[in-house]
Amino acid sequence: MARDSGITPRTKDYSQWYLDVISNAELADNSPVKGCMVLRPNGFALWEGIQSDLDRRFKETGHRNAYFPLFIPLSFLSKEAEHVEGFAKECAVVTHHRLRSTMVDGKPAVQPDPDSQLEEPLIVRPTSETIIWHMYKNWIDSHRDLPLLYNQWANVVRWELRTRPFLRTAEFLWQEGHTAHASKEEAVAEAEQMLQVYVDFCRETLAIPVIPGVKTASERFAGAVDTYTIEAMMQNGWALQAGTSHFLGQNFAKAFDVTFQDVDGERKHVWATSWGVSTRLIGALIMAHSDDTGLIAPPAIAPTQVVIVPIARKEHERAEVLAYAEGVRKTLAPHFRVELDDRDKMKPGAKYFEWERKGTPLRLEIGPRDMEKGSVFAAPRFGEGGKFGIPLDTLVETVTNTLESMQAALLERAETMRNEALYTCTDYEEFKTRLKEDGGFYLVPWCDDAEAEAVIKTETKATIRCYPLVLPEAQAAETADWVGKLPCFKTGRPSTHVALFARAY
Amino acid sequence: MARDSGITPRTKDYSQWYLDVISNAELADNSPVKGCMVLRPNGFALWEGIQSDLDRRFKETGHRNAYFPLFIPLSFLSKEAEHVEGFAKECAVVTHHRLRSTMVDGKPAVQPDPDSQLEEPLIVRPTSETIIWHMYKNWIDSHRDLPLLYNQWANVVRWELRTRPFLRTAEFLWQEGHTAHASKEEAVAEAEQMLQVYVDFCRETLAIPVIPGVKTASERFAGAVDTYTIEAMMQNGWALQAGTSHFLGQNFAKAFDVTFQDVDGERKHVWATSWGVSTRLIGALIMAHSDDTGLIAPPAIAPTQVVIVPIARKEHERAEVLAYAEGVRKTLAPHFRVELDDRDKMKPGAKYFEWERKGTPLRLEIGPRDMEKGSVFAAPRFGEGGKFGIPLDTLVETVTNTLESMQAALLERAETMRNEALYTCTDYEEFKTRLKEDGGFYLVPWCDDAEAEAVIKTETKATIRCYPLVLPEAQAAETADWVGKLPCFKTGRPSTHVALFARAY
Repeated sequence: MARDSGITPRTKDYSQWYLDVISNAELADNSPVKGCMVLRPNGFALWEGIQSDLDRRFKETGHRNAYFPLFIPLSFLSKEAEHVEGFAKECAVVTHHRLRSTMVDGKPAVQPDPDSQLEEPLIVRPTSETIIWHMYKNWIDSHRDLPLLYNQWANVVRWELRTRPFLRTAEFLWQEGHTAHASKEEAVAEAEQMLQVYVDFCRETLAIPVIPGVKTASERFAGAVDTYTIEAMMQNGWALQAGTSHFLGQNFAKAFDVTFQDVDGERKHVWATSWGVSTRLIGALIMAHSDDTGLIAPPAIAPTQVVIVPIARKEHERAEVLAYAEGVRKTLAPHFRVELDDRDKMKPGAKYFEWERKGTPLRLEIGPRDMEKGSVFAAPRFGEGGKFGIPLDTLVETVTNTLESMQAALLERAETMRNEALYTCTDYEEFKTRLKEDGGFYLVPWCDDAEAEAVIKTETKATIRCYPLVLPEAQAAETADWVGKLPCFKTGRPSTHVALFARAY
Repeated sequence: MARDSGITPRTKDYSQWYLDVISNAELADNSPVKGCMVLRPNGFALWEGIQSDLDRRFKETGHRNAYFPLFIPLSFLSKEAEHVEGFAKECAVVTHHRLRSTMVDGKPAVQPDPDSQLEEPLIVRPTSETIIWHMYKNWIDSHRDLPLLYNQWANVVRWELRTRPFLRTAEFLWQEGHTAHASKEEAVAEAEQMLQVYVDFCRETLAIPVIPGVKTASERFAGAVDTYTIEAMMQNGWALQAGTSHFLGQNFAKAFDVTFQDVDGERKHVWATSWGVSTRLIGALIMAHSDDTGLIAPPAIAPTQVVIVPIARKEHERAEVLAYAEGVRKTLAPHFRVELDDRDKMKPGAKYFEWERKGTPLRLEIGPRDMEKGSVFAAPRFGEGGKFGIPLDTLVETVTNTLESMQAALLERAETMRNEALYTCTDYEEFKTRLKEDGGFYLVPWCDDAEAEAVIKTETKATIRCYPLVLPEAQAAETADWVGKLPCFKTGRPSTHVALFARAY
């Protein structure tokens, strides 16, 4: 167990650092299937934490879980014109339902059986609007059946050639909410509510401050009227789209002919939303907080919040120290996710090193001297305070306070970083220079021109992340009177929006 | 809301009854994808209950969750000869990764893009041994890396032409445990331990008594050395295989070349197990307990354990009754999964009817007279006791006791039914007659002959469910000295096993 962490420093190569953190914390591994990754237990435990927290929030806002088929008939995808256009280039297509043994180059081989070719190919769902709205037609007849507030936890496939663990993979895990409403107002309110659920979750649980906003037409979900987004800033100043919520208008209701009898007796098309977050959030969490030592998991989501490491240099001390440590574990277990690392034949230093790379927020060291004093020795994974002793009689209280202040410190640090790199800029040439030199997010006066947007992307690789709905106070104040007053930073025409530009994952 | 339940009585048509219970409780719906069903929120909530209970048991026995790719390269499946043989006939095969617009019969149509054909087709996982053992090779090197105790919650696909909701569908949800061990003994012990976890779960949570046993070679999992099973009896006397646990020997370790350095310094192949249960358990739950009124959900798993129905015949009583009912809900909420059905414009009778079909164990009715008495009126979903009043000051205690005795009564009823129809028989002709007339399970002296097994299947449609490991006391005593003493009930040769025969789903 060498002490060289094998983690490339962020300043040297940020992309490699990200991959090194993942492999050192054993979060994920490459798979032999192109574009697909394996979530190892340490990585999947983060997803379980995200799932259980979000699932509670969804249920508190009246949603129920359901499960729809993995396969979507090809003809369904084609029913909403923009939708098929958006997903056609990245679909896994099932064409056969049986294998047979045959001879290839004189050797026995197994191949798809030509006699089992499907009449209509099936698509592995890239998203489930079409199959779900097909089913909604059976379940919606009257205004009394509305709203339908369903969510699904599932795997989806979007064939990607250039992949990066968690951020972009051919198969990924996500949740997709699909709701049906009697009025436009109600559907818009739902889409906005779920965006807020994501904002709160990122802030309270992942300790990631995000900027909520509206996407431009070019970045809109295929089939949506409006796409809302939350954009997070990574430590290299790039943006990461961490979740989206779509107001779908009546597009899918019309494509699948889903109508209801309203209170006024008339039949009307239903209004829709969909919204989702994915295992991408794990990538966001890694890149927002971790350091050159490895992962830093916010206490609220950390699979193990507290690890106890017993230290017995002499064999005869071992049983006593272990018993004391087990007592500490039992004291903490009702309140925290705690683990006692009682592995034999592994030195304390090697254990420290391993738990640090895994991002566990708080380590408690226990040796004979701590026992004598009736205390434990606490080593937080990050922060300025250093190590400190905790007497057993204040253990639960002190650990609670320590984890809470660590959670708050992570959020504050991320927020400070984000606010300091959230620039305003009114001149395109200046923007190009500063983006190249400093990175970061840029608020600019903008005229909502798709062509100019494309030119900027080509020239700078930066894209419009969103038209922000909420900004930090300083930036909100500074940009408050821009629209109408300032010209577009690129075209010089009258500005219509404040746009947020950044390089993005 | 008509009162005709639309549920066919069991005595009239058991298969139709099963489908009617499912549609009346809104558990599942047919989908437009052949063989795939939709789990509606009421059905999915049962799965969520099963998941959270089993997941706790898996973690208590040291297992961790991970996630492996949906797709398996065709060549992987072929590496274990029996494995590919077992699954080749029912594989969904992905052959393309893109669609393109084209013209078919002069009309625009979307089709798989021939230029996107994959070099090697991918199989949608029917089970994950092959992809998992490919990964295990990267993670296992020393005896210190063992055991690996991983589980995955996932969807799998086995192309089925004759499907039945929950019991047999092309796509289904399940969990699959995959463990790696240093010794044969340890792996066998793991397979047996997980079988016991399933036995306990079925008994304690689903109130279903099962018979654990070992499968014959013809019913063994493709690639296993031994397959353990739990067999449950449905109300029509048929068997349902409710879960399996496999001792895989070194078959997959050899196919994927997974070795470890043992304490003695030698490199050896790893020993393996896999084990799983699926959404099939929901079918077992329905068929074990429900009646002609609809679903009966055991209290331990019921998504809603207690429903409160306020009854206000006069408009001016409404607010008061609702406030009282809400107080009752708040009293119960910390202890039970409780819902207050405050739907306006729906009569109490219609609500009763709906909650009965949904299988909710306990209904509490609250009207002005109950308020005056400071009580609620309890109506259990089943049982001999009828309705009864509960004073508010014993509410939590009485509801606890009521639900517990309902859970116990369900198990007792299922166990009595199962024990009474668990026959012994030593003569094949008698077996044929009784199976036809009475149905049920038959313990017979048996000589472990695959040919005779096939003949019996053809002649009677009954199959060997297992060689039981544990039997009820009476049947255990009666069959204890059969082997060696009695001849095989079919071939007349010396018997080697006590076998359990039955018709099965």
